[in-house]
Amino acid sequence: MARIINFNPGPATLPVAALERAQAELLELGDTGMSVIEHSHRGKAYEAVHNEAITLVRELLGVSDDYDVLLLQGGATQQFALVPMNLLKAGQSADYVITGSWSKKAFAEAQVVGTARVAATTEQDKKFPRIPKQNELDLDPKAAYVHITSNNTIAGTQWMTFPDVGNVPLVADMSSDIMWRPVDVSKFGIIYAGAQKNIGPSGVTLVIIRKDLVAQGREDIPKIFRYSTHAAANSLSNTPPTFNIYLLRNVLDVLKQGGGVAAAEKRNLEKAKLLYDAIAARPDFYRSPVEEGSRSVMNVVFNLPTPELEAEFIGAALKQGMSGLKGHRSVGGIRASIYNAAPKEWIQTLVAFMKDFHAGS
Amino acid sequence: MARIINFNPGPATLPVAALERAQAELLELGDTGMSVIEHSHRGKAYEAVHNEAITLVRELLGVSDDYDVLLLQGGATQQFALVPMNLLKAGQSADYVITGSWSKKAFAEAQVVGTARVAATTEQDKKFPRIPKQNELDLDPKAAYVHITSNNTIAGTQWMTFPDVGNVPLVADMSSDIMWRPVDVSKFGIIYAGAQKNIGPSGVTLVIIRKDLVAQGREDIPKIFRYSTHAAANSLSNTPPTFNIYLLRNVLDVLKQGGGVAAAEKRNLEKAKLLYDAIAARPDFYRSPVEEGSRSVMNVVFNLPTPELEAEFIGAALKQGMSGLKGHRSVGGIRASIYNAAPKEWIQTLVAFMKDFHAGS
Repeated sequence: MARIINFNPGPATLPVAALERAQAELLELGDTGMSVIEHSHRGKAYEAVHNEAITLVRELLGVSDDYDVLLLQGGATQQFALVPMNLLKAGQSADYVITGSWSKKAFAEAQVVGTARVAATTEQDKKFPRIPKQNELDLDPKAAYVHITSNNTIAGTQWMTFPDVGNVPLVADMSSDIMWRPVDVSKFGIIYAGAQKNIGPSGVTLVIIRKDLVAQGREDIPKIFRYSTHAAANSLSNTPPTFNIYLLRNVLDVLKQGGGVAAAEKRNLEKAKLLYDAIAARPDFYRSPVEEGSRSVMNVVFNLPTPELEAEFIGAALKQGMSGLKGHRSVGGIRASIYNAAPKEWIQTLVAFMKDFHAGS
Repeated sequence: MARIINFNPGPATLPVAALERAQAELLELGDTGMSVIEHSHRGKAYEAVHNEAITLVRELLGVSDDYDVLLLQGGATQQFALVPMNLLKAGQSADYVITGSWSKKAFAEAQVVGTARVAATTEQDKKFPRIPKQNELDLDPKAAYVHITSNNTIAGTQWMTFPDVGNVPLVADMSSDIMWRPVDVSKFGIIYAGAQKNIGPSGVTLVIIRKDLVAQGREDIPKIFRYSTHAAANSLSNTPPTFNIYLLRNVLDVLKQGGGVAAAEKRNLEKAKLLYDAIAARPDFYRSPVEEGSRSVMNVVFNLPTPELEAEFIGAALKQGMSGLKGHRSVGGIRASIYNAAPKEWIQTLVAFMKDFHAGS
């Protein structure tokens, strides 16, 4: 059968061109006589791919020389531990802004490592309907860092304006919206992202970290967990996930060819507007549980009048070739994840279906 | 051009059939309408692949229900830290048998975490020409565990008989020879292996761990680093490296179709014998730096009379389509890595070349 419409929240759909390139080269990378998977990570052929991936990150996000760009393993979940292990020293505390399940997990991991406090939470009845306002943040000016989750895949919320945290390093988990638009990297101490939503396959994690934070990192933790180890070795201290980085490179190259992150922002805003407008047009039937101003451009969540209708909606959509629309098991409802690689046509198809489904109900 | 002969030490050559299967399915896994890379790790299509990979590990190595089979990230290098983090408690010490660079790295990481001692080392003039004998092991009967490296890729040595360590759990880094032959898993507390030499791509690490050791693991370390976290969630606690596990599955399936690890052992012994015989046949020209009885079936290292002749050998071999023969930069010489996926014909080609090169010198 043909490829279907894929609204999966992550791992998620990837640009077809990036996959086709991988497919064409899978047994032979260029004229090297072997797959990229079979190349030594110390050889020139792989090194070129590795460095191109890092250069593309720098170009696309305008990352200055004050930052290291690392490509690591373990997912964002491993960063939940590595950030406090590296940056949270005895006698210090770190601030966490809680906007969903992933922030809570990051906070819990920091509590295992050291002292962490909640600077704000928007939890209401086990849900997180919004992003906090600046004046709701109870920030510790002496905190080792402030941690936020830029986009919340389950709640469907997103920071549209990043908070002002003074001179404290801002650490952001951007796993689900990295490169959806330009970002002023200089406002952050660390940006990290599992690749599998917006920029590549699972199994590779992007970390953009200010060099002074690398230098200040704790030395009493295992070497493999120090940012300094990976920064000093250009992420080649131990064998990297070579195919994953290769495919990340392919995806970033497609993004660059498509006009970079500024063009992506325009496309993403247009896609999200189509969907939010479709929800707003039928307020008695479709309803967003997210406050205006906090609504995610990446994960559009909405409800129908009953869970039964939602199940029917998901089943009928699947029959029309639209998969991945089921909301996270912890909150239910509908969720359309429309990352960079989801084409506008998919959202148009979904919007037409929403109209028909409402008319038929 | 066509695929060439690849003697890389890791990442290494993979079975062509495993790569061709991945290539054919790269845009559509079966009739699911999307790539395995784009599937949710919580969905049925990926789950089937994941569980098949684990089942194949169990079948191929005869792993009993007393053990968990985990598929993790971070490479063997991350296991250097995780083993002591989980198993080495305050007041305890761990024993390390040092047979090469990788053992030394594992030992160094354990020293960061807790107390570790050297139970034996075969280092001589910065080289490791052999595996220690049982009576050379100075074992601590109260050790938390004894750590060995089953095959040493740089030194070209391999444990042909595993040591008797009494009731202390034996932990083995089998990254470079896992599944080269059958192994009695019940003799080990933990077997771990980065996949990229013998069983798959980089970016996925196999851990086979006795369930009582999982249960005894420390709880004061970050959740992501506890074996118990991954064992309880069937290695799906956080997003796994899905494509890497998929390709591992493909490789293990090829191994199974080829008669399993018993058949692999026969092929591997035959391949290694061809090469060691070719070295022994011209003792004035080719020389193994490894003592008999310690010689690796996976990484055959040898020297020529001078470094200049070795460089000439490597260059001439490359012109005849044989790559990856340069010894590790720390020891020089020649190294042919002939893991499971290297066909006998490649070794025959190399042996014929060795004869010609000697005759022409």
